[in-house]
Amino acid sequence: GHSGPDAATWPWPSLFPPQPSLPPDFVEALRAVVGAPNVSTATAVREQHGHDESMHPCAPPDVVVWPQAVGQVQELAALCHRCRVPMVPFGTGTGLEGGVNAVQGGVCFDLSRMDAIAELSLEDFSVTVEPGVTRKALNKHLRGTGLWFPVDPGADASLCGMAATGASGTNAVRYGTMRPNVLNLRVVLPDGRLLHTAGPGRQPRKRAAGYDLTSLFVGSEGTLGFLTQATLRLHPLPEATAATVASFPSVGAAVACTVQVLQAAVPVARIEFLDEVMADACGRFSGMGLPAAATLLLELHGSRHSLAEQQQQMEEIVRHNGGSGLAWAQGLEEREQLWSMRHNAWYAALALRPGCQGYSTDVCVPISRLPDVVVETKQDLQASSITGPMVGHVGDGNFHCLLIFNSQDPEEAQRIHAFTQRLGRRALAAGGTCTGEHGVGLGKRALLQEELGQEGLDTLRSIKAALDPHNLMNPGKVL
Amino acid sequence: GHSGPDAATWPWPSLFPPQPSLPPDFVEALRAVVGAPNVSTATAVREQHGHDESMHPCAPPDVVVWPQAVGQVQELAALCHRCRVPMVPFGTGTGLEGGVNAVQGGVCFDLSRMDAIAELSLEDFSVTVEPGVTRKALNKHLRGTGLWFPVDPGADASLCGMAATGASGTNAVRYGTMRPNVLNLRVVLPDGRLLHTAGPGRQPRKRAAGYDLTSLFVGSEGTLGFLTQATLRLHPLPEATAATVASFPSVGAAVACTVQVLQAAVPVARIEFLDEVMADACGRFSGMGLPAAATLLLELHGSRHSLAEQQQQMEEIVRHNGGSGLAWAQGLEEREQLWSMRHNAWYAALALRPGCQGYSTDVCVPISRLPDVVVETKQDLQASSITGPMVGHVGDGNFHCLLIFNSQDPEEAQRIHAFTQRLGRRALAAGGTCTGEHGVGLGKRALLQEELGQEGLDTLRSIKAALDPHNLMNPGKVL
Repeated sequence: GHSGPDAATWPWPSLFPPQPSLPPDFVEALRAVVGAPNVSTATAVREQHGHDESMHPCAPPDVVVWPQAVGQVQELAALCHRCRVPMVPFGTGTGLEGGVNAVQGGVCFDLSRMDAIAELSLEDFSVTVEPGVTRKALNKHLRGTGLWFPVDPGADASLCGMAATGASGTNAVRYGTMRPNVLNLRVVLPDGRLLHTAGPGRQPRKRAAGYDLTSLFVGSEGTLGFLTQATLRLHPLPEATAATVASFPSVGAAVACTVQVLQAAVPVARIEFLDEVMADACGRFSGMGLPAAATLLLELHGSRHSLAEQQQQMEEIVRHNGGSGLAWAQGLEEREQLWSMRHNAWYAALALRPGCQGYSTDVCVPISRLPDVVVETKQDLQASSITGPMVGHVGDGNFHCLLIFNSQDPEEAQRIHAFTQRLGRRALAAGGTCTGEHGVGLGKRALLQEELGQEGLDTLRSIKAALDPHNLMNPGKVL
Repeated sequence: GHSGPDAATWPWPSLFPPQPSLPPDFVEALRAVVGAPNVSTATAVREQHGHDESMHPCAPPDVVVWPQAVGQVQELAALCHRCRVPMVPFGTGTGLEGGVNAVQGGVCFDLSRMDAIAELSLEDFSVTVEPGVTRKALNKHLRGTGLWFPVDPGADASLCGMAATGASGTNAVRYGTMRPNVLNLRVVLPDGRLLHTAGPGRQPRKRAAGYDLTSLFVGSEGTLGFLTQATLRLHPLPEATAATVASFPSVGAAVACTVQVLQAAVPVARIEFLDEVMADACGRFSGMGLPAAATLLLELHGSRHSLAEQQQQMEEIVRHNGGSGLAWAQGLEEREQLWSMRHNAWYAALALRPGCQGYSTDVCVPISRLPDVVVETKQDLQASSITGPMVGHVGDGNFHCLLIFNSQDPEEAQRIHAFTQRLGRRALAAGGTCTGEHGVGLGKRALLQEELGQEGLDTLRSIKAALDPHNLMNPGKVL
């Protein structure tokens, strides 16, 4: 089970009006569609499906179903639609804003058993996957083909889940977020009809045929329909890769270095920022002994020949900005050590206050404003006595505070909540967004309203009402 | 005036039920908003605004207005909305599928006099432009900054118009289409309300905050609202550029070369295909004397150092596929000569049948299917006795037939129409789209239905109905 906080004292709005219980014989009707072993009302199973990796209080669905095929998803959705029962799509449960929490009960659709990888086309750089396929499973499948799928949010999330939340991560500066990497989606609409966002069986690299439904469903966080298949754009594996770490005298110097790298058109693949608290924590957690300073982790992809030039350009720009370090890791093992240090940032942060929980916030600002926003945020953390190391995809202006706190302590939870609201508003005031990649989910709904304004929110609401008039798809999220 | 074909015998559906005339005093009310000199009902002006560069019959609006500021666009829209008068946005009129033709009359909003370039941020690689700013005007403004806006559909279109149609062009293989290059749009909704698709004043490089309204309005072809400002993503100018032409023994060889270039991760900036008819016509029109063969025009961008490597890789792949030619044009003048040959393809095609008109069709297919689709299309052209040289953005699988015909001859127009329907269906059967970049406009509505299927079309219609319930924005287009 999930030993989460108490919903009654949890400062993020997460309490919803009590829902009517399921209609009589409803669970039997679900069993008739998918078979009894693929339906569960066990408390442990429901609780396991009532939360993601964030600290939002567990909100279990009334029942969990495991459809095995798209036709079953359609039948189940039609059934829920007829009975006006809420539906929540579930992938790997690795989200960070409470996207799967069943705050209005209903049926959780666990799509992990639909896991076919179909229609790999090496010439077209494309592949079609079902919702049970994770990014690591896909890249394993692609071994030896010379292609890979680069979007990497850290967790081994399902690719359809990554499409649903509009995920991105460390490689986005070079390869883009999920949105430009999804060519087509097969969607089960709330009433059970089947939609192919780019038309059935299509996968051109670009389209100008009608409104871009693919981009609309990417990032819709399960509120418009079920993503039951995604056609993805693949990329050629780089011939050579090199990674390094550099320490800087200040946040401003690290960001100036980043801007100059982008201006010089160095095709950097990853450029990750750690503040001095995070660098120190990661260094100690990994045993790599990183200086407690503003730090950049850099990765370059290219041909062997071009890599040498990129490294040289990078070294010049790093030095120009007072950076030091820069031992290049070119072997796979060395690079994996470096990135495992980065990917363990979460655990390194948790180790700063053993026994506490973590909440990873996420904002994104124009890069010119990043130094000010980071410095102000660090002052705010200090003034609020909050442990919150910072880590960011600095090439995109996107950064996270890993807020470590005792979620069972209502006062501390309240303090963290107030901090995240201030951080969100600071990002908005700087011309940024309250979420660059984690999504709105439960936690960012109030900030979304401030970000978009009334006309923006009304436009989102009218789209939601047009596609899900009975508000059955993942109710309580985003809007 | 536009000496176009007769709407009564024009085979593409372009006749709409006659509209009621404007309400009494309506034109006076328009004048009260923008001033009398900014309103015209003159026949010549209306006809000039009743067509684009395609051969769809001219459909003049009842009146043309030139708003000078976004507040005026809002007032005018609110007025039209109250009186239920259709509204048509107009940029440079350089579209290719009849997007601006006022098939149900109403008010044409000519936005060319709103031409401010605001908020250029070199550190953030972004700029905000009003609808009167064309891509060439922007790039002129950017001279000396080290940045540029690469999306290049050929015509010197307005950037907001390019956003409205989801334009792309020769550079898309490297820099993407309009969609990933638009960060925010200021939209006047059909009832006059003002929407900022990414929130007012915001320009983060990525967002996960609610449905992606920016991507929804990009490519909406004026059917959801007026794009009155666009915040665009800029790119660093390449340090060095080289371009070349190579001739191939077959279409298949040219496409195989393209696939191998992409697989080798050569970051090609432009890779344009000309079939032997087009190569011959372009060679003769420009006086450059190109062999009548399947041809690739290639452009590479990079540092001086990396360019040499790219050129070497490219030469190997071209030779491996039986290509010949490959004198590299590195000076600006030489390159401009090469690309002006490509950009004059339209006139070179028209010169094949003096006195005739041209219609540029546009489909996009998965690249693995491109050789078959091109070869079948060439057979179809021959069997149908149609002059239609082919030119394509082959890195995206996108190609055009430049159909040269006498649009005043109903029989020939009918033959051309039947051919374009077959071409569209051939692209759909190959897993492609009926339009990769020109949009649906008037000409592709029937094909769009086949492409998306009933559920897809119903979804587009419900979005349209949600945002424009009285069907006032550019009625008769897309849907």
